[in-house]
Amino acid sequence: MPHQILVIHGPNLNMLGTREPEIYGSLTLDQINQSLVDCARQEQAILSTFQSNSEGELVTRIQQARTDGTTWLIVNAAAYTHTSVAIRDALAAVAKPFVEVHLSNVHQREDFRHHSYLSDVAKGVIVGLGAWGYEAALRYILQQPVS
Amino acid sequence: MPHQILVIHGPNLNMLGTREPEIYGSLTLDQINQSLVDCARQEQAILSTFQSNSEGELVTRIQQARTDGTTWLIVNAAAYTHTSVAIRDALAAVAKPFVEVHLSNVHQREDFRHHSYLSDVAKGVIVGLGAWGYEAALRYILQQPVS
Amino acid sequence: MPHQILVIHGPNLNMLGTREPEIYGSLTLDQINQSLVDCARQEQAILSTFQSNSEGELVTRIQQARTDGTTWLIVNAAAYTHTSVAIRDALAAVAKPFVEVHLSNVHQREDFRHHSYLSDVAKGVIVGLGAWGYEAALRYILQQPVS
Amino acid sequence: MPHQILVIHGPNLNMLGTREPEIYGSLTLDQINQSLVDCARQEQAILSTFQSNSEGELVTRIQQARTDGTTWLIVNAAAYTHTSVAIRDALAAVAKPFVEVHLSNVHQREDFRHHSYLSDVAKGVIVGLGAWGYEAALRYILQQPVS
Amino acid sequence: MPHQILVIHGPNLNMLGTREPEIYGSLTLDQINQSLVDCARQEQAILSTFQSNSEGELVTRIQQARTDGTTWLIVNAAAYTHTSVAIRDALAAVAKPFVEVHLSNVHQREDFRHHSYLSDVAKGVIVGLGAWGYEAALRYILQQPVS
Amino acid sequence: MPHQILVIHGPNLNMLGTREPEIYGSLTLDQINQSLVDCARQEQAILSTFQSNSEGELVTRIQQARTDGTTWLIVNAAAYTHTSVAIRDALAAVAKPFVEVHLSNVHQREDFRHHSYLSDVAKGVIVGLGAWGYEAALRYILQQPVS
Amino acid sequence: MPHQILVIHGPNLNMLGTREPEIYGSLTLDQINQSLVDCARQEQAILSTFQSNSEGELVTRIQQARTDGTTWLIVNAAAYTHTSVAIRDALAAVAKPFVEVHLSNVHQREDFRHHSYLSDVAKGVIVGLGAWGYEAALRYILQQPVS
Amino acid sequence: MPHQILVIHGPNLNMLGTREPEIYGSLTLDQINQSLVDCARQEQAILSTFQSNSEGELVTRIQQARTDGTTWLIVNAAAYTHTSVAIRDALAAVAKPFVEVHLSNVHQREDFRHHSYLSDVAKGVIVGLGAWGYEAALRYILQQPVS
Amino acid sequence: MPHQILVIHGPNLNMLGTREPEIYGSLTLDQINQSLVDCARQEQAILSTFQSNSEGELVTRIQQARTDGTTWLIVNAAAYTHTSVAIRDALAAVAKPFVEVHLSNVHQREDFRHHSYLSDVAKGVIVGLGAWGYEAALRYILQQPVS
Amino acid sequence: MPHQILVIHGPNLNMLGTREPEIYGSLTLDQINQSLVDCARQEQAILSTFQSNSEGELVTRIQQARTDGTTWLIVNAAAYTHTSVAIRDALAAVAKPFVEVHLSNVHQREDFRHHSYLSDVAKGVIVGLGAWGYEAALRYILQQPVS
Amino acid sequence: MPHQILVIHGPNLNMLGTREPEIYGSLTLDQINQSLVDCARQEQAILSTFQSNSEGELVTRIQQARTDGTTWLIVNAAAYTHTSVAIRDALAAVAKPFVEVHLSNVHQREDFRHHSYLSDVAKGVIVGLGAWGYEAALRYILQQPVS
Amino acid sequence: MPHQILVIHGPNLNMLGTREPEIYGSLTLDQINQSLVDCARQEQAILSTFQSNSEGELVTRIQQARTDGTTWLIVNAAAYTHTSVAIRDALAAVAKPFVEVHLSNVHQREDFRHHSYLSDVAKGVIVGLGAWGYEAALRYILQQPVS
Repeated sequence: MPHQILVIHGPNLNMLGTREPEIYGSLTLDQINQSLVDCARQEQAILSTFQSNSEGELVTRIQQARTDGTTWLIVNAAAYTHTSVAIRDALAAVAKPFVEVHLSNVHQREDFRHHSYLSDVAKGVIVGLGAWGYEAALRYILQQPVS
Repeated sequence: MPHQILVIHGPNLNMLGTREPEIYGSLTLDQINQSLVDCARQEQAILSTFQSNSEGELVTRIQQARTDGTTWLIVNAAAYTHTSVAIRDALAAVAKPFVEVHLSNVHQREDFRHHSYLSDVAKGVIVGLGAWGYEAALRYILQQPVS
Repeated sequence: MPHQILVIHGPNLNMLGTREPEIYGSLTLDQINQSLVDCARQEQAILSTFQSNSEGELVTRIQQARTDGTTWLIVNAAAYTHTSVAIRDALAAVAKPFVEVHLSNVHQREDFRHHSYLSDVAKGVIVGLGAWGYEAALRYILQQPVS
Repeated sequence: MPHQILVIHGPNLNMLGTREPEIYGSLTLDQINQSLVDCARQEQAILSTFQSNSEGELVTRIQQARTDGTTWLIVNAAAYTHTSVAIRDALAAVAKPFVEVHLSNVHQREDFRHHSYLSDVAKGVIVGLGAWGYEAALRYILQQPVS
Repeated sequence: MPHQILVIHGPNLNMLGTREPEIYGSLTLDQINQSLVDCARQEQAILSTFQSNSEGELVTRIQQARTDGTTWLIVNAAAYTHTSVAIRDALAAVAKPFVEVHLSNVHQREDFRHHSYLSDVAKGVIVGLGAWGYEAALRYILQQPVS
Repeated sequence: MPHQILVIHGPNLNMLGTREPEIYGSLTLDQINQSLVDCARQEQAILSTFQSNSEGELVTRIQQARTDGTTWLIVNAAAYTHTSVAIRDALAAVAKPFVEVHLSNVHQREDFRHHSYLSDVAKGVIVGLGAWGYEAALRYILQQPVS
Repeated sequence: MPHQILVIHGPNLNMLGTREPEIYGSLTLDQINQSLVDCARQEQAILSTFQSNSEGELVTRIQQARTDGTTWLIVNAAAYTHTSVAIRDALAAVAKPFVEVHLSNVHQREDFRHHSYLSDVAKGVIVGLGAWGYEAALRYILQQPVS
Repeated sequence: MPHQILVIHGPNLNMLGTREPEIYGSLTLDQINQSLVDCARQEQAILSTFQSNSEGELVTRIQQARTDGTTWLIVNAAAYTHTSVAIRDALAAVAKPFVEVHLSNVHQREDFRHHSYLSDVAKGVIVGLGAWGYEAALRYILQQPVS
Repeated sequence: MPHQILVIHGPNLNMLGTREPEIYGSLTLDQINQSLVDCARQEQAILSTFQSNSEGELVTRIQQARTDGTTWLIVNAAAYTHTSVAIRDALAAVAKPFVEVHLSNVHQREDFRHHSYLSDVAKGVIVGLGAWGYEAALRYILQQPVS
Repeated sequence: MPHQILVIHGPNLNMLGTREPEIYGSLTLDQINQSLVDCARQEQAILSTFQSNSEGELVTRIQQARTDGTTWLIVNAAAYTHTSVAIRDALAAVAKPFVEVHLSNVHQREDFRHHSYLSDVAKGVIVGLGAWGYEAALRYILQQPVS
Repeated sequence: MPHQILVIHGPNLNMLGTREPEIYGSLTLDQINQSLVDCARQEQAILSTFQSNSEGELVTRIQQARTDGTTWLIVNAAAYTHTSVAIRDALAAVAKPFVEVHLSNVHQREDFRHHSYLSDVAKGVIVGLGAWGYEAALRYILQQPVS
Repeated sequence: MPHQILVIHGPNLNMLGTREPEIYGSLTLDQINQSLVDCARQEQAILSTFQSNSEGELVTRIQQARTDGTTWLIVNAAAYTHTSVAIRDALAAVAKPFVEVHLSNVHQREDFRHHSYLSDVAKGVIVGLGAWGYEAALRYILQQPVS
């Protein structure tokens, strides 16, 4: 059975490529998503993506992963990383493993970005490696058995 | 005049019965709601319920309680309990008394669940008694005069 | 086998009805106790009560619950809630489940009343619902199987 | 080129005039908005307003300011002031200057209202001057060159 | 009607005169008490004293002041000053004004002695003036009208 | 009766125009004061100003406002904002309403500038809007009835 | 040799009798000072008083106590109690014993008034007893041998 | 002159052998006491023991050690270790050296058990070695000269 | 010019494969190193590795990277991550970019492992992905231009 | 099979007997070691000792205990107690039980000596009993079965 | 052009030589000043000194350094080091480099003396070397080019 | 008898002149050492230097100062300043006075560099004056009598 992977993008990531490119890079979110879909397909895996600025919509989409065949998630909750217990709870409720990704090195930024509500329930965390962080997470997942 | 009670359920409570039943119990939200409606009806009171994963929708629904005849609320804001000043403000704005309820004993869980933005504006708080917590809150309210 | 329930009342609760009635209500402790005894009897359960101003006497009474047939406790440790590790240890030592009750909403009062040494070893907690808090705890217990 | 100003109103501000008037004043949000529109028009500037109870909708509306000709924002994020990194990030992403406004004096209220996620990325902050705070922000902006 | 004053001495004060005299002075508790009784009698006031090492006994004795004619208390709760919410609650429950007294200057000692659970519910506080602290409190009280 | 307004300028504001103009702007204090006097006169109000580097002189000048006809104050206590309980007490003692003003956005500067001893006793606060902050405060005051 | 006592009054105490009388009482500073002078004279002691709103002037006056024959000080540093290391250092430099006095009960007021830079170098502290606090300090001193 | 040693056991230690044996071991308090008495006798020393659940009784018993010939104490204050300034004061008042003992390794348990009010006035501390901790303390004392 | 990469392994990593395999996995350090060398060689890059239990030796080896042709480092400082300013300073002194790697998810472990002295000077961080973390870091580096 | 015990001495313990003897006693490290070897031999156990000023050498020596037949360790990590996660990790990696020993009472010294990185992974802790602390630890171990 | 150096002495330094000589040494301030003047003159530099107990006078004197030809300052703000943002602001406003000096080792004294409002805006800091600290600062300055 | 001075240089100082010269200056460590040796020789004193990246080697070298004739030390522990209790203990163990020196102004750098484990056991501290800091320390020592 192939992996079926859901990539979650949090608020403001729809502005990638235009928003502060010196921090977040010049790729658009579509470009990143397309590249991940291609990479997954080469390995016979299925990958879908979801972006929302709304905490509630992100919670709802994550909940659906419980029964839609998703095997792993890749989660970049952006600003909600630091404030959302609801997304943490949704991830715990669906009980699927996930990798947390951040494009920029959050440890070089404001103090409130040093704490994540997700890291201790994630399988692993990748920060500061730009769009490669998503791909590294994907390749890690593809090495794991489908449980 | 009978009591008219609004029960607010926060994010992820729509997954009750499937989500971590060892923490939250095996009843579904529909079962809990039906039981509360029945209990209220026996006492000639009206009870309606509302669940959302969206902080904004919860705020908006609470606001409506100001003029829709609601006399009391029962509020389980779930994860938003610990992060939402907006829901606190909505409850203060409608100026109706409410009881805060949590299914699990939040004091046995992560540190960030020990603080509630709602408790000091609530009339009272019930935690850890499962679905009975809602019913206990309801029975308490039914003993209060309709002001 | 019927439930046998021990209700523990901490310091100054002997003054109920006279002490700051706007905070604690106008019922005396005797009235509350009688009401609880009656309520239990209707359900074929046994309920006894104990009040002391002394931390040591409360510890000793709780210890006796280990072998005197007590199945559950209802504990309002009052001021000792916030300062007594000894009562917490006694409750852990007897290893009987208990519900923590407070008459007033401690979250609306001084900061030092926001922390309880008992909550994370209790089954559940009820605050701010006045004397109904005891009854709600009792009714919850009566629904549990006698283990 | 005239200024084009976007006024952002956060959660519960739709209840102005009815909600706790001793704190927030007796003007409705429509009255405030109309007054600001009129004031701007007199100075040949354009002013539009947006209110939402949803953090995500506020983020999305702010994002649009990046390309819709907006030159400045006036932001009263209400409760989200104290909890929303996402709104902060949206404001940074659009890279338009803004003035933060609060109707009431947040420093006289609960401790959690003393911290703002917006103040250090704002141009300036006005608190406690009621509806005049919006107008003062507007008049300040109208003195700035359109960059 | 004359003043009727109750002087409360907390744990270890029975050892005065022998215990660390460089800190607490060389007078015994009996000598201090006798001197206070004499001083009160000269002013046609009644003064009684109570010492205990037990928090519970101190609570119980303070409670009795509610109905035994006591008009004011002088309270040196010694070590319990820093740890006893129960004594604070008892003083609030009897609702009689009191002056807090400490023989030594607690601000020159360990950090945990810098906080008192009594000071913010006391009328006033006197520290570091030895046995004169009791007498100063007494003379202050004798100047107040009997309410 | 016209408003009579006292503007208080704290330490180092006498150096305005020369001191770090990228933070504080290029206007001198005399220019700001003259502009405020003119603005007040147009509205038939009286405005006087006072600057001192001495905390004690500022306290003394504020005290005089109690009986010299002052109706409102505008206070920029500069560095003393963050360290002076004495100025806070003086403002409380004269019992006249005041608006707190800061030229620069203190929230973008060192941590110790984020706390003000004045804000919670002020009517309102304006920060970061340069010299316009004084004028906005003045215009706000002129709209208030003379009590 | 008689005692020669210096009474130090800090900022805003010159407004006693007019400033917030519900907190500070209705006696003026002159009345308090006269009463202390009279009391000292009856005991063949000399007492002088000094008030200033200026921290520096208070420091300078305290320094003079080193060589002007002063045997003890009574110090009510008012607001400077909580902020002035300089007054603490001056008191240490003159090396004369002193009693710290506060008219109101500082423990019932804002948190920043709970800490004193003087208490741990004082001989003792009296708070909340109004003008009697000064007299109690004086009577205590008059009982001490002149060293 | 032989050593005369007093062993103090705090609250809940009377339940040893039955209470959570995986933490505290399966020996009863009587067995531990008997073993210590025997061990002391072999070395011509006298050893007595005292257990109470009451803080006040423990204080009183410790006070008696001042004049009853006690040369050293062994103190396991159990829960009062973390909350009792009164026991600390009693130990300081009797001015006899003592060793603090805990059966379990308190550092592996809840945070509030990591702080002891006794350790910095004890001669030494032994934790986590079960009943041997008492014996090790005893053997240490027996090597010390009787002062 | 090819990349020349230095992999730094901190204390206790020499025990990999034997030490707590449920946390750190069952691969030995030699196996991990060989796999990285092979991976680099396929991409025409050079990779060398260094392990030491000594903070000083790690500092010295990192210093050599300044002049030995190293273009990037991969650093798993293990326990020294949380305590070593010296390793941080060495990395800053050689001024070569590096990726921080941890085998286990440090956010799920003790609090003191949540802080790293290296993260804010690293280019990026990868935690919890086991040996793949090293490879992901390597593949990221190989995508970067050799500066 | 006999016990084989490794005693680890941390930095500066090689100076025992000369370094601050009023704190650490007058025995040299050689004398303490010889005494422990003799004591072990009498019980048919083997005991070896190791001292180093180097954190890395201590880590390496502890690692060897995994396979060299060591059954228990006695660890006095001295200054590294308070700063070394690496030694903690080494002890966890070898997975042998150990007793932590300190010669002086660390609780009477600087605050930074009150925290140990080892205590919560140790079996037990002995502080302040001088060289007897080592012997008490040894005698405890000799009572344990060889696992 | 020669250096022109201003030496600032804060409160209570006028008492040097008499005040606590075991802490501050036995030289008077005049002796220290004369020595500095002589030392500067030998190097063809000009040095003037200023002492005040008043924060405001110190601020005003520092402000004058902006235009009176001063090239560097040496600042011992004494007690104001720990409490004065105004002096920090004055030093920033004049924008002349300065060396911070303390006679005693502030790190060995009370906690509140460990923080300085000046150190992070100073060029360097010298503490604990007595009067030599001033001279060392002077000699350092004389080595710098006059900018 | 002449002074014999040991200069201790901590980790990464061997890279001086190459490492971040804008922070640490362009002199190499050899140049600084040679200059200090020359300076000492002119005053008939002996000066030797020691640099290591290893905490243990630094501890060992400092220990030797106890018996090798060293009269004073100059210590720049670099990164170990902020993390090494072992070096602090070694300095206390040798009981020779020392001056702490830092080339850069640590108060302008990261928060973790604001605390030193050495300052409160040093005689004095010099920071931010570059290589002159060492010379100033040396000249101070040469003025002290050889004890």
